[in-house]
Amino acid sequence: MREGFRGQLDAIRGALADMTDTAATAMERATVALLGADLDVADGVSALASQLDGARRAVEDRTYEVLALQQPVASDLRTMVMAIKVGGDIDRMGSLAHHVAKVAVRRHPGYAVPDQLFPLFRQMGDMAVRMARGAEAVLQSTDAADAGRLAIDDDAMDGLRRTLFRTLLDEWPYGVEAAIDVALLGRYYERFADHAVSIADGVVYLVTGELPKEPI
Amino acid sequence: MREGFRGQLDAIRGALADMTDTAATAMERATVALLGADLDVADGVSALASQLDGARRAVEDRTYEVLALQQPVASDLRTMVMAIKVGGDIDRMGSLAHHVAKVAVRRHPGYAVPDQLFPLFRQMGDMAVRMARGAEAVLQSTDAADAGRLAIDDDAMDGLRRTLFRTLLDEWPYGVEAAIDVALLGRYYERFADHAVSIADGVVYLVTGELPKEPI
Repeated sequence: MREGFRGQLDAIRGALADMTDTAATAMERATVALLGADLDVADGVSALASQLDGARRAVEDRTYEVLALQQPVASDLRTMVMAIKVGGDIDRMGSLAHHVAKVAVRRHPGYAVPDQLFPLFRQMGDMAVRMARGAEAVLQSTDAADAGRLAIDDDAMDGLRRTLFRTLLDEWPYGVEAAIDVALLGRYYERFADHAVSIADGVVYLVTGELPKEPI
Repeated sequence: MREGFRGQLDAIRGALADMTDTAATAMERATVALLGADLDVADGVSALASQLDGARRAVEDRTYEVLALQQPVASDLRTMVMAIKVGGDIDRMGSLAHHVAKVAVRRHPGYAVPDQLFPLFRQMGDMAVRMARGAEAVLQSTDAADAGRLAIDDDAMDGLRRTLFRTLLDEWPYGVEAAIDVALLGRYYERFADHAVSIADGVVYLVTGELPKEPI
């Protein structure tokens, strides 16, 4: 019975890792849609976000099934609740990638982001994808060292967002509409990164029992 | 045993209703801090957000304890998982109120919001508080009709956010910094409202078994 439970748990963890991979792809493409003003790519992001919503529900259902079939002990329950929480984080990452893509659609055929900020958004996009893949690695390895690297990346992401806001406030010749787009986009990338950290922290908590301070 | 479980469940639901009440107060005071450029009130919001973080952890611990002591059946497990999810929603509402207060602190002794927008932010603040109290009512009554009213309020909140963005884009003589503050503030109020709806939907789901489409 315990053997079977472990196997089912590993399967759920695998499904969550796959979902995180999809979230990384969604944000990768959202950044392409944003910087290329590309409607087709933006549509693809919308499809991936819907796919993640379905995958989250499937993981929830599977988790409840496993719980109903087993007589889980307290630590197993924590694991199952954490699986459902992580599924929610990943689903939300898909929504945030979708938000980025929607900004691209709204400004099409124009570009939401001024040329000057292309390199910075490319960096934020790369960092977001890297952090999602980092969370995927933690789901696969359940290694606290992998999670530690994510915290460093998160600091880098915060630095990028600070640079973005300094640029917005120092000299901004592109008007209010572009300023709002850019400020909200910065927030979407930052929240995406927060959820990646939250996934990694959740996995580490299950392995080590140490609860990190949740990012506010 | 089942009797005891129901009682413990009611206690957890009561704790969540109390937390939602605190979240409503936090957003009420955050709006006062914002429109009054009041540092003391903003500090109070920070304290309430910390209090909610602690309360969320307490509800999680209590939920796990109840689960460990009982041999829960599948539907009870759903209830416990939902309690933990709702606790997370409320904690996040506290963080969003804190974000609003932090904008007030950042612009002090100035005002983050131009006079012209005071009535609109007062409306958004009132609506946010009303929706949090609505979620609290659903937690107490578990009545689907109460949840229905929240969905209507959420449409009104979306309308207020649209008005806000129209104002930002039509004519905006207050500069880029204020535009960014106002755009992000609008997002914080909107997300606060989304979480209130999510709480109500979660409770209704437990009572009726009908899963609403999660707001994206």
